Amino acid sequence: MSEYMRGKHTEIQERVFDYFNSRPDLQTPLEISKDEHRELCMRQLLGLVREAGIRPFRYVFEDPAKYFAVAEAVGSIDMSLGIKMGVQYSLWGGSVINLGTKKHKDKYFDKIDNLEYPGCFAMTELHHGSNVQGLQTTATFDLMRDEFIINTPNEGAIKWWIGNAAVHGKFATVFAKLLLPTHDEKGFADMGVHAFIVPIRDMKTHQTLPGIEIRDCGYKVGLNGVDNGALKFSSVRVPRENLLNRFGDVSRDGKYTSSLPTIGKRFAATLGELVGGRVGLAYSSVGVLKISVTIAVRYSLLRQQFGPPKQPEISILDYQSQQHKLMPMLASTYAFHFATSYLVEKYSEMKKSHDEEVVGDVHSLSAGLKAYITSYTAKSLSVCREACGGHGYAAVNRFGSLRNDHDIFQTFEGDNTVLLQQVVGDLLKQYKKKFEGGTLSVTWNYLRESMSTYLSQPNPVTTRWEGEDHLRDPSFQLDAFRYRTSRLLHSAVLRLRKHSKNLGAFGAWNRCLNHLLTLAESHIESVILAKFIEAVQSCPDKNTRDALKLVCDLYALDRIWNDIGTYRNVDYVAPNKAKAIHKLTEYLCYQVRSVARELVDAFELPDHVTRAPIGLQSEPYTQYTQYIGF
Amino acid sequence: MSEYMRGKHTEIQERVFDYFNSRPDLQTPLEISKDEHRELCMRQLLGLVREAGIRPFRYVFEDPAKYFAVAEAVGSIDMSLGIKMGVQYSLWGGSVINLGTKKHKDKYFDKIDNLEYPGCFAMTELHHGSNVQGLQTTATFDLMRDEFIINTPNEGAIKWWIGNAAVHGKFATVFAKLLLPTHDEKGFADMGVHAFIVPIRDMKTHQTLPGIEIRDCGYKVGLNGVDNGALKFSSVRVPRENLLNRFGDVSRDGKYTSSLPTIGKRFAATLGELVGGRVGLAYSSVGVLKISVTIAVRYSLLRQQFGPPKQPEISILDYQSQQHKLMPMLASTYAFHFATSYLVEKYSEMKKSHDEEVVGDVHSLSAGLKAYITSYTAKSLSVCREACGGHGYAAVNRFGSLRNDHDIFQTFEGDNTVLLQQVVGDLLKQYKKKFEGGTLSVTWNYLRESMSTYLSQPNPVTTRWEGEDHLRDPSFQLDAFRYRTSRLLHSAVLRLRKHSKNLGAFGAWNRCLNHLLTLAESHIESVILAKFIEAVQSCPDKNTRDALKLVCDLYALDRIWNDIGTYRNVDYVAPNKAKAIHKLTEYLCYQVRSVARELVDAFELPDHVTRAPIGLQSEPYTQYTQYIGF
Repeated sequence: MSEYMRGKHTEIQERVFDYFNSRPDLQTPLEISKDEHRELCMRQLLGLVREAGIRPFRYVFEDPAKYFAVAEAVGSIDMSLGIKMGVQYSLWGGSVINLGTKKHKDKYFDKIDNLEYPGCFAMTELHHGSNVQGLQTTATFDLMRDEFIINTPNEGAIKWWIGNAAVHGKFATVFAKLLLPTHDEKGFADMGVHAFIVPIRDMKTHQTLPGIEIRDCGYKVGLNGVDNGALKFSSVRVPRENLLNRFGDVSRDGKYTSSLPTIGKRFAATLGELVGGRVGLAYSSVGVLKISVTIAVRYSLLRQQFGPPKQPEISILDYQSQQHKLMPMLASTYAFHFATSYLVEKYSEMKKSHDEEVVGDVHSLSAGLKAYITSYTAKSLSVCREACGGHGYAAVNRFGSLRNDHDIFQTFEGDNTVLLQQVVGDLLKQYKKKFEGGTLSVTWNYLRESMSTYLSQPNPVTTRWEGEDHLRDPSFQLDAFRYRTSRLLHSAVLRLRKHSKNLGAFGAWNRCLNHLLTLAESHIESVILAKFIEAVQSCPDKNTRDALKLVCDLYALDRIWNDIGTYRNVDYVAPNKAKAIHKLTEYLCYQVRSVARELVDAFELPDHVTRAPIGLQSEPYTQYTQYIGF
Repeated sequence: MSEYMRGKHTEIQERVFDYFNSRPDLQTPLEISKDEHRELCMRQLLGLVREAGIRPFRYVFEDPAKYFAVAEAVGSIDMSLGIKMGVQYSLWGGSVINLGTKKHKDKYFDKIDNLEYPGCFAMTELHHGSNVQGLQTTATFDLMRDEFIINTPNEGAIKWWIGNAAVHGKFATVFAKLLLPTHDEKGFADMGVHAFIVPIRDMKTHQTLPGIEIRDCGYKVGLNGVDNGALKFSSVRVPRENLLNRFGDVSRDGKYTSSLPTIGKRFAATLGELVGGRVGLAYSSVGVLKISVTIAVRYSLLRQQFGPPKQPEISILDYQSQQHKLMPMLASTYAFHFATSYLVEKYSEMKKSHDEEVVGDVHSLSAGLKAYITSYTAKSLSVCREACGGHGYAAVNRFGSLRNDHDIFQTFEGDNTVLLQQVVGDLLKQYKKKFEGGTLSVTWNYLRESMSTYLSQPNPVTTRWEGEDHLRDPSFQLDAFRYRTSRLLHSAVLRLRKHSKNLGAFGAWNRCLNHLLTLAESHIESVILAKFIEAVQSCPDKNTRDALKLVCDLYALDRIWNDIGTYRNVDYVAPNKAKAIHKLTEYLCYQVRSVARELVDAFELPDHVTRAPIGLQSEPYTQYTQYIGF
């Protein structure tokens, strides 16, 4: 199993693990002040790049899959380090290279790579996070001096939550509305949000530069190794060349040029370059889930409590309730593993081919998987803590810091509720295409094949089939997922159309919002299941394939059972079939429990990475008592 | 509304708030080391008792409702303080008074009260938490010296997670198996778990006493102001009088006497005295939920993001998705408020009357409400953080510490999964009684009245009623909740009977465990709804009553919708009725949103208690920017 689960870049992950294992001085203690943590995190990053010879910035462009593998690995050392690295290379570095042109690459690449230029990504403002087009910071072109003037016009426009700003950053990519001088009465034309490189601290003295105020955003729920700060600009001047001008440029005489026709298209192209961050978060979130589920499963096998009268106590994983908490979670971890591996593959392909269809697919898929998986992992971390009882509450057993650090994955790089709506936007576009006879992107093929089937009444015979063979047939499972998605999509279209008449497009969207979010989740689940089924079928070894099939069946039936109301309501399953699904789900939990240890072992997380004493592979209790000094 | 919500003991809560507001030096900073936090927490407790003149220990016995009100209030200052106070007065103090006799009260009461004797409650061991009867620590009676010898026989028996042990405790109530000398070949008879007062530190030097090893359990996910430690005893001797001998005593010549006939009964009586802790946790958990929902609702009203084209942005609470996250939660907070007020009342009554039926009712109800409410609050804290986006992640906005501190409420004083099974045990007893013609306890009356109705097929006419009047009729709502509970109970009995034949009682219980847990939750929800409906109907002011009715309807219909699969599966609701319930739930969310500000204001939490800048009642953004130094 471990062989089949192993990625292409396991080797570099092992290098990361070995490096930190060899440097106990770089390991983050359980209790550490914010200020010390930030300095430690910087030393960790410097060590990684300059000593261990890992060069994340190069991988970003040469082999994104390798970059994501490194990000997952360093995140499991300390999630603050993972995020600090992401700020430096994916956000700051990525924005310079992806939104800039050759002159920027020549000037900045090497020094970003070797950390001489630590930088920030200054997009979010106090009043605006999700609504990036509503940003208030301005960059006014001064024709006389050939400079942009960066300004914070009001309190709400203060750049907020900017990683690397409070302590280490020398530069920031600042997102601001580009204002160009005109001859009309307004005096300026708003060209939409653009990105500018702004030096924020002196290269030698590290003093904050004139016109810039920096404040520390302070203590956070987690990720306190990342120095988030707030930036306020009072008419800060930067040369014209500091505009990151790949999608839009300003000439010496103040004329605007762009290969893209509208503000909307330029904005979409700009944000489109940032999609890698979402891919990375989805991927790393699965890494967090693997650690958490490994600790919880190992402890649940170890821990014994109660039992039949006059017999030894039993493992708590032998309780149906504990299986119910952890086995579908373990199955989901496998499902997400294959789905995010596929996403990384597609992303790498997109970066090579720039094929428009792949671009659209990756955008929608990365938004959906990031939202769906990070929400799931966040909930699971709490379930794992609770499932491990009092010992789950010891900081040394990891659930607290994993949860606190991971929590914000649901919000940054796109709020999950907003991202799911992007998925819906794509679905509706695809739906329209279908009925106009166009082609659908790969992820959507299933709709073309079967939309009309799904919209007819369910077959009254199959709705009554209850046999295990039928319920464990991938085609039944996929059909159920896709049936649900298709119904939700079709009814969403009808409802949106109906409400638009009275409420307008925005009002109608809001009136249907819960429905739309359910639709997005349902679609993502369909994609995840399809990828899981493919992974089962492609597995060459029979024993491994059988085990994977078991896990995949649990994933599928547990999801169907969770939404049994919908299936019952349209009579897609008859009452007795619903009961059979429930019964089989419980039975599969019990079956997966019997191979649970092997399934978590296959994640190949060394003890020095999982670290939690209660989740160690040998003598966990003794290591735990030794840890507190007995 | 605030008048109707106000408890009898609001005045003492205000005294607590005012005291801490007047002592900024006693307020817990956001970032504080574990060791400093523990000392601060002790100073807070000393200040409360010795300066502010609050005497929690007296209220425990004189007026439990007053004690719980103080516990809720100090918990909202710093939850560590709430728990430290609970350890001192409810656990350590409570065990001495409730399990001991007059001699113990005379000797210890005053010094526990004034904090001269800080103490611990040493029940949990490394290997045993939930299974208290499995504790391994021994207390062997030494006839020669008239002493008990307290001993930790193995690593697994080390007392673990003991509050007050790591730093401040002078004494501990130690739970251990009482071993009495016999003349047979074993030499000792195991009389079951008893409680003993054991001095652990020297009164003057504060040195650990001989034979005792104390270790620090270390940094925790939360509650780091409480000094949890581990205790290991090597043949520590205490005089015979240190046995807390209310339910069982040992005479000078080593004879055991008790008013209760069996080990099981004595064990139940001993644990029964600890039920107050669960009442307090359920009550304080609602307090935490009120703070959290207040901050989240106020911020969601303030925060604007996106909007119709060319119009101002709208409050995020105007989004259906945000209403969906927060409005049922607000409704649940109200529901839990009334349910826990009722529980506190019943508990106070029990403490006065010792009526056996009330005792049984309070035991089951406190177990159920503690489990149900703390699980709900724990989930809600994560939802609130996520609903408040990036600013919800600033430590100053509270969700992180509230979640981390509250998290363990799900585990201590009885693991929630275990407590729900106690509720089921009571339900099955009641079920048996019913069919044997006996009386049912108050909470169970509904079963007697209608069990047979519920077990027949649903009325095919009412299953199709979809009108708003019908769906908002309390008798429909209660009927739905009780129908579900009755069905689950009846089918559980049948399934347990069937499986017992092959699997034995323990195996059958485990085979049905998920079912039993759902049954327990369903019963608790029925009780909560019944109390809420009563509270609506008893409200004298019409406007307030109407608003409460709205909130109550949302609570009821949201719960029904959440389990719509079950209702559909037995055709309790027809497909179109299910849709109508869903639609009305969304509409009620929208309606409650329009009075959301007033509903959270009615909790009467002053700004210096909620504290989160984003949840303040005036100029939250400005206070937030000032907080970070602009």
